Amino acid sequence: MSTENRNMKMLIAYDGTHYSGWQKQKNDRTIQGEIECCLKRMTREEISLHGAGRTDAGVHADAMCAHFLTRSVLSVTELQRGLNSMLSGAIRIITVEETDLDFHARFHAKGKLYHYSLYCGKIQPPRSRQYLLHVPLPLDLNSIHSCLAIIEGTHDFSSFENSGSRDKTILSGRGAIRTIHSAKLTADRADAFVFQFTGDGFLRNMIRNLVGTLIEVGRGRLSSKEFKAILKARDRSLAGRTAPPHGLCLKEVFY
Amino acid sequence: MSTENRNMKMLIAYDGTHYSGWQKQKNDRTIQGEIECCLKRMTREEISLHGAGRTDAGVHADAMCAHFLTRSVLSVTELQRGLNSMLSGAIRIITVEETDLDFHARFHAKGKLYHYSLYCGKIQPPRSRQYLLHVPLPLDLNSIHSCLAIIEGTHDFSSFENSGSRDKTILSGRGAIRTIHSAKLTADRADAFVFQFTGDGFLRNMIRNLVGTLIEVGRGRLSSKEFKAILKARDRSLAGRTAPPHGLCLKEVFY
Repeated sequence: MSTENRNMKMLIAYDGTHYSGWQKQKNDRTIQGEIECCLKRMTREEISLHGAGRTDAGVHADAMCAHFLTRSVLSVTELQRGLNSMLSGAIRIITVEETDLDFHARFHAKGKLYHYSLYCGKIQPPRSRQYLLHVPLPLDLNSIHSCLAIIEGTHDFSSFENSGSRDKTILSGRGAIRTIHSAKLTADRADAFVFQFTGDGFLRNMIRNLVGTLIEVGRGRLSSKEFKAILKARDRSLAGRTAPPHGLCLKEVFY
Repeated sequence: MSTENRNMKMLIAYDGTHYSGWQKQKNDRTIQGEIECCLKRMTREEISLHGAGRTDAGVHADAMCAHFLTRSVLSVTELQRGLNSMLSGAIRIITVEETDLDFHARFHAKGKLYHYSLYCGKIQPPRSRQYLLHVPLPLDLNSIHSCLAIIEGTHDFSSFENSGSRDKTILSGRGAIRTIHSAKLTADRADAFVFQFTGDGFLRNMIRNLVGTLIEVGRGRLSSKEFKAILKARDRSLAGRTAPPHGLCLKEVFY
């Protein structure tokens, strides 16, 4: 009989390079799988870790939020130290806190901030190759900014949703409609850029599809007018390619 | 009969994480070995690549200089593009240029700049774990700066030299005496620091031994007076531990 009486909330950073994404899988190393495995060893309970969302294989996070219910009497410090000592350095538990029993990392998430990072110089520095997408071409930033302004607001993002299971538990009713509070492009340096998207939720591969299409705009292969038409068409076949996962990072989950 | 009539000079960046250092080895992946292998395929010659120095396993470079003699008629652009298309993204050829036939990357090097990077926050961000040494402790920066001032100048650095083959071809005569033009510690952020060493040459593991000992000073385990005594003693057994390789990066070679 389960009588979990504590709810533990964690912030987790990870380098997704060598993981098959967040969600537990039978035969692959995943972030959820690795952390659950350590929690089971520490608590001797069958722990279910609930993340605020699922990141794909190769996607990184600076602050994924997750919670789990437990009967363990371990302190938050013991849990954090124990996990960080058992886990690979590719996964770090940033904080652990005890929270209300009804807190749910996924159901209560009000929004998320994602970054997608590009390097536009001629030769990509080796040490950033797993964290920045290399686009060795000049980009038309004005056209990209026009498209980012189009993205902001509430839209049906079907054109930027990959096929695959949509999470029916909380998103039913609103279909592919999402609200993007902010879509920006900032320059780290003259040749390094970061797309920043804040929204109430994101469809499967939505940011990577947006970025892949925005790069087409930046290269002059699509106009901002065509970009707007693609968004309105609600047809995935019109948008650009899915940008690879390694430029993407979950920066924050809002509650 | 060899009739090489071109001397090609290259600047090379690499992420040393998954390599057994610069120098070619029979059974291990090395930077020199990988590049020579590609050059042989491109030129169908037995190419010898001469680096400005040898970096240890796990050490990185932003601009290692190297040269090779060849009879190939490939242009510098063809060489650079060909190498970068064959090599892993962990190794990038930044520039290729044709230079004087008597230029030698090692013998003509007048000095080098190395950086050693530390992260002193509580939890190390996963994506920097292979590039910054994690020292999760407050460091006494004033004491470290005092020691860096002691290091600058011409000294016998025997106390900071690891055993192993010293390069006799160019260093004979001066033993373990080296001139450090500049030894600095700069702060990237409040919790990230970079040691910067410029000198006419460095003994085997010298920077890693200096950094390991300077960290002991920063932690209050050694005083700057004791540090000075260690330098003067010319006895390796007195200095601190060798800092791990992953914080170290060859930034520039001077000619």
